[in-house]
Amino acid sequence: MGSEEKLAKLREITAEIRRLGSIQALLEWDQQVNMPRGGAEDRGNQTALVAGLAFDKSTSDELGALIEDLAAEVPDLDLDDDFAREIKVAKRYYDRNAHIPREKIIEFVLATSAAHEAWVKARAENDFASFEPHLTHIFDLRRQQAELFQPYEHPYDPLLDEYEPGMKTADVRAIFSALRPRQVELLRAISESEQVDNSFVKQHYPFEEQRKISSFLAGRFGYDWERGRLDLAPHPFTTSFGHGDVRITTRFLDMDGMSALFSTMHETGHALYDQGYSPRYRETSLDGAASLAMHESQSRLWENLVGRSQEFCRFVFPVMQMLFPQHLGNVSLEQFYRGINRVEPSLIRVEADEATYNMHIMLRFEIETGLLEGSLRARDLPEIWNTRMQEYLGITPADDTTGVLQDVHWSSGLVGYFPTYALGNLISAQLWEKMVAANPEIPGAMSAGDFSQILAWLRENVHQHASRYDPQDLVRKITGGPIDPEPYLRYLNAKYSRIYRF
Amino acid sequence: MGSEEKLAKLREITAEIRRLGSIQALLEWDQQVNMPRGGAEDRGNQTALVAGLAFDKSTSDELGALIEDLAAEVPDLDLDDDFAREIKVAKRYYDRNAHIPREKIIEFVLATSAAHEAWVKARAENDFASFEPHLTHIFDLRRQQAELFQPYEHPYDPLLDEYEPGMKTADVRAIFSALRPRQVELLRAISESEQVDNSFVKQHYPFEEQRKISSFLAGRFGYDWERGRLDLAPHPFTTSFGHGDVRITTRFLDMDGMSALFSTMHETGHALYDQGYSPRYRETSLDGAASLAMHESQSRLWENLVGRSQEFCRFVFPVMQMLFPQHLGNVSLEQFYRGINRVEPSLIRVEADEATYNMHIMLRFEIETGLLEGSLRARDLPEIWNTRMQEYLGITPADDTTGVLQDVHWSSGLVGYFPTYALGNLISAQLWEKMVAANPEIPGAMSAGDFSQILAWLRENVHQHASRYDPQDLVRKITGGPIDPEPYLRYLNAKYSRIYRF
Repeated sequence: MGSEEKLAKLREITAEIRRLGSIQALLEWDQQVNMPRGGAEDRGNQTALVAGLAFDKSTSDELGALIEDLAAEVPDLDLDDDFAREIKVAKRYYDRNAHIPREKIIEFVLATSAAHEAWVKARAENDFASFEPHLTHIFDLRRQQAELFQPYEHPYDPLLDEYEPGMKTADVRAIFSALRPRQVELLRAISESEQVDNSFVKQHYPFEEQRKISSFLAGRFGYDWERGRLDLAPHPFTTSFGHGDVRITTRFLDMDGMSALFSTMHETGHALYDQGYSPRYRETSLDGAASLAMHESQSRLWENLVGRSQEFCRFVFPVMQMLFPQHLGNVSLEQFYRGINRVEPSLIRVEADEATYNMHIMLRFEIETGLLEGSLRARDLPEIWNTRMQEYLGITPADDTTGVLQDVHWSSGLVGYFPTYALGNLISAQLWEKMVAANPEIPGAMSAGDFSQILAWLRENVHQHASRYDPQDLVRKITGGPIDPEPYLRYLNAKYSRIYRF
Repeated sequence: MGSEEKLAKLREITAEIRRLGSIQALLEWDQQVNMPRGGAEDRGNQTALVAGLAFDKSTSDELGALIEDLAAEVPDLDLDDDFAREIKVAKRYYDRNAHIPREKIIEFVLATSAAHEAWVKARAENDFASFEPHLTHIFDLRRQQAELFQPYEHPYDPLLDEYEPGMKTADVRAIFSALRPRQVELLRAISESEQVDNSFVKQHYPFEEQRKISSFLAGRFGYDWERGRLDLAPHPFTTSFGHGDVRITTRFLDMDGMSALFSTMHETGHALYDQGYSPRYRETSLDGAASLAMHESQSRLWENLVGRSQEFCRFVFPVMQMLFPQHLGNVSLEQFYRGINRVEPSLIRVEADEATYNMHIMLRFEIETGLLEGSLRARDLPEIWNTRMQEYLGITPADDTTGVLQDVHWSSGLVGYFPTYALGNLISAQLWEKMVAANPEIPGAMSAGDFSQILAWLRENVHQHASRYDPQDLVRKITGGPIDPEPYLRYLNAKYSRIYRF
């Protein structure tokens, strides 16, 4: 085979792997959105079958040989060149998948399956002790996986790299060290100020109207309904079965009128990214987001930088008042803006506001690296958790269910994933500063309900590139510097000093 | 490998093929029910990938060798014995799939793909001549496929056998010959009587209420919502992703208040069958319906024998009056019953009533066998079609769009499929006679909205057996005789002589 043929063959195999991934995504979307209860057992078998086929294809010797041959033709895989990049990323995926022996993969799948079941039970019964051996086992297995990717500076590096290609533990530490004291300081200033009222949020808002405003805003942001749809799911998520079919979900809560609104804007942010990849990368190894943090930067940008801004409120509040006259008729624009931005240290990460969210992440990052290094022991986690929650947020969980047992991630083997949430927050503010500096009319346009320049800028600078650049390179290309906490801190301080009047 | 191991391996492969089939069914269900337009291209690739994987697995040498070995251990594959039957059916599928050379399969897929496109255009433009070469080609290829399965009595036999295992062309001819003159006679009697009024049907009925009555009736018939759901699709259908997930669809028409009702009852009949297979056959070669005719007997039984009966009307009409007071408030029960049973020879098969439906099928059967034998030429079809429509139904299409071009089947390569619709009608009446003879209280119970005995009888006599018997053997086991047009003719005559007063 000549190189052309080899590249064509690589792309054919890559496309098939991606199609299997899309099929698995549909099986899972349907399970969350549509599947009747009785379908669970068969669906499990169907998903496992597709996952197995995808794994076999992703780790085949044929694919490995093709990539080796093509890589040998590239003078430098780090070249800023489409072809070099395509091979580099294909090689990265292949090495990551094929490096772990099959029996270790099976051991890991069985361990996470048992751990997940144990976690569900432990959380329900507030019984950390019963989960602890599983947690230890998962971290052992993850450490063994990491060791297969030596040399590294830190055993956490290869795990982090799965979600955030190119990012090192030392980078995250440096960023979080700069961030932590400044966020603590901000939270102190807020806690010393008079609390804002958000009682208008904590009411029952009719679901039909919530659905209307959710759809309205998604479309207004630029979500393409010809290439997507909005459904209900217990936990909102975005999924994609190709550039032409990117679906979002939301949920309506009984006593919270804003949850669906912000979660829809969040998922719309994810979906706009998935709808925006250049067709030139379609079904190649460069198809898809640069990283999880980059993905999260998009969701956070639309949810927070847009959706919780004063300018956006000017546009959306009259619409909301029209839809919910009994809830908002006597609320002022200023009350609305302050209310939806109320800061309240809470036990649960997924309910955290902008000012406290990163604190939850830093706590988890410290625990993950500590367990992996061996400087922390699993059995001490409840105490460590509670002590740091007090230190960072000034609150202590009454039990482990609302403390160390709250997240599903570790039981699923997702170690190294959490930092991407905080990095996404930071990147969102970096992009925003750059975007508004280049387009100073954006805030004014938001007040008028025009978001087209925002989307156009993101399409141009972020979305279209798909995985053409590693996330840190993309941030550098756009902003001229690395991932940096300063813009996010500036944003938080400016916003909350005004809302909390300090 | 010992026999036990071989059987286990056969079942493992069979289960994987079935899972791939279920995944393909989900891809197609989602395409009809949910998929945004932009998803079409990727969805086509995903479906083709899964279909290809299923085909490769269904025709592998490994599977063939396993079946040969196991078949050699069975003294007689026609034994009335679970194991013999499981191997017999596995062998039948394998032979059917593996017998056709791969290049002929590809040729056929390409031909039907081109023919389908040509058919869509020809139908839109009333241009039979442009479709004729495709039709000739499809029939040539189908005839070549049939020849691979020699010896046969008639080249149509192997094609019919794909949809109706064990059924011969001669059997269908004998049945249709007995049926045709008696149906023509019935239609003459009806046409000489005063027409009934059904103007209450041809109005706009609110969709939300149509959805309510559709769901209500499906549940009332015994459809298990824990193992299914009802959605909207352009063409109603039933699909299944396993015994625990059997989904139905319906549609609401702007100016027809009864279409959704009857199509939901029809699909519910299909779904009750799919929900009723014994778990002992799950994922084996005996999982699924005995045949298409047997499947159609279930949908027709619930749609017509139940859904268009006087007793059922007694139960459902007050409910309908409550839901649609403006449409039905001034309609009497008798008017309702007669109206929904109005007979009107029409050009379009899918809109045909019970008294005319089989005539459409017999016409298609004559054309299919004639083309295959060479006794008819494709270019003469419009004339043949129109002449027979006049002869059988007393009407002549004004164009080929509403004549010979109306059905999608031939362009998709489905030659041998049509007879199953009529056979299903006949079987439904045979089952009904037997069931009511054994349970004379059934009609009375229907008037009170109780359908539990009907479902219990079908579960016991039909559903649970899945593919354990060939359809004709199952009919014989239940009724003591072969597929027989007499019960259906008795049913039609009794019903319409009362409605049309002749």
